[in-house]
Amino acid sequence: MRIAVDLAKAYRLLNHGPTVLVSASAEGRNNVMAAAWVMPVDFNPPKVAVVIDRKTFTRGLIERSGRFALNVPCRAQARMVTALGTHTGREIDKLSDFQVSLLDEPTASSPLVGGCVAWLDCVCLPEPHNEATHDLFLGMVTGAWADRRVFDGGRWHFDQVDEGFRTLHHVAGGHYLAIGDEVDTGQ
Amino acid sequence: MRIAVDLAKAYRLLNHGPTVLVSASAEGRNNVMAAAWVMPVDFNPPKVAVVIDRKTFTRGLIERSGRFALNVPCRAQARMVTALGTHTGREIDKLSDFQVSLLDEPTASSPLVGGCVAWLDCVCLPEPHNEATHDLFLGMVTGAWADRRVFDGGRWHFDQVDEGFRTLHHVAGGHYLAIGDEVDTGQ
Repeated sequence: MRIAVDLAKAYRLLNHGPTVLVSASAEGRNNVMAAAWVMPVDFNPPKVAVVIDRKTFTRGLIERSGRFALNVPCRAQARMVTALGTHTGREIDKLSDFQVSLLDEPTASSPLVGGCVAWLDCVCLPEPHNEATHDLFLGMVTGAWADRRVFDGGRWHFDQVDEGFRTLHHVAGGHYLAIGDEVDTGQ
Repeated sequence: MRIAVDLAKAYRLLNHGPTVLVSASAEGRNNVMAAAWVMPVDFNPPKVAVVIDRKTFTRGLIERSGRFALNVPCRAQARMVTALGTHTGREIDKLSDFQVSLLDEPTASSPLVGGCVAWLDCVCLPEPHNEATHDLFLGMVTGAWADRRVFDGGRWHFDQVDEGFRTLHHVAGGHYLAIGDEVDTGQ
């Protein structure tokens, strides 16, 4: 069900503000964390920004590999997202403990999380000031994919599928809002 | 219906990824533009990041005043949001042409747009590199408010009110997704 998304339209995977899972790998160790503070910053070449707290285990993996992936999880994964966002890879192997499956996508340079509805594989743009001062990481998107059941033709289509496919938008704690109805202003 | 929001919880007004209206004022001229690329970057002190293209008229107002406000519009305002996002203040007076009302909030330093469901008044954090390289503006939140019909006790509550109050999440063109159901993972 996974289709490649034109890189010039990769921003549309994040444009509506979903919470993401940030995945990274270094020296044989994978990890995944949750992040709500993420956005596109450019169309073409496609760039993204994400806040990665300095206390996170994932940050060390990103600093060592220079790479990360943004995975867009869905409502069916809400409990897993909360679990991944409230535990640290310093203490446990979150992928094993929370049954996180990884996709077999040979062109991706960071692990991609199974069951998500979109993925953006990124290379870090070195930004020492932003990283040190704001915990802000910028990335160039080098690969993008989506589940074609919910994203096709450059747009999200949630109306025709099970509620479990809807993206999650974090409020606080273990509380989210799922994305809702389409609103078309005809322009 | 407008209540002040504790600054330490102001990030929750943006955490779920709504599209915003960016408003600014300088030398007697107000303007409002739409922006989907916006996110919190810190809790306390509360900071935000927003991408403001160098071609926008609003950017000049922000550069001159050192201030901007983020207004969170709702579904009832979808046509106005598209209009504000597809015209420039260089050519027309958008506030007048699109019947944008401004609130009387004496403690705000930038104009606040009426009919929205949340507002964050911000002072720019000077970031010459980010502004020049990424069109990225950082702001310190100095005031935050929400419509208590949809945000109270530090959380959004859309279930009990008219659909028109739901936040808008931009996909592309004049196409949005409204925010949907609450999802509570019990943690």
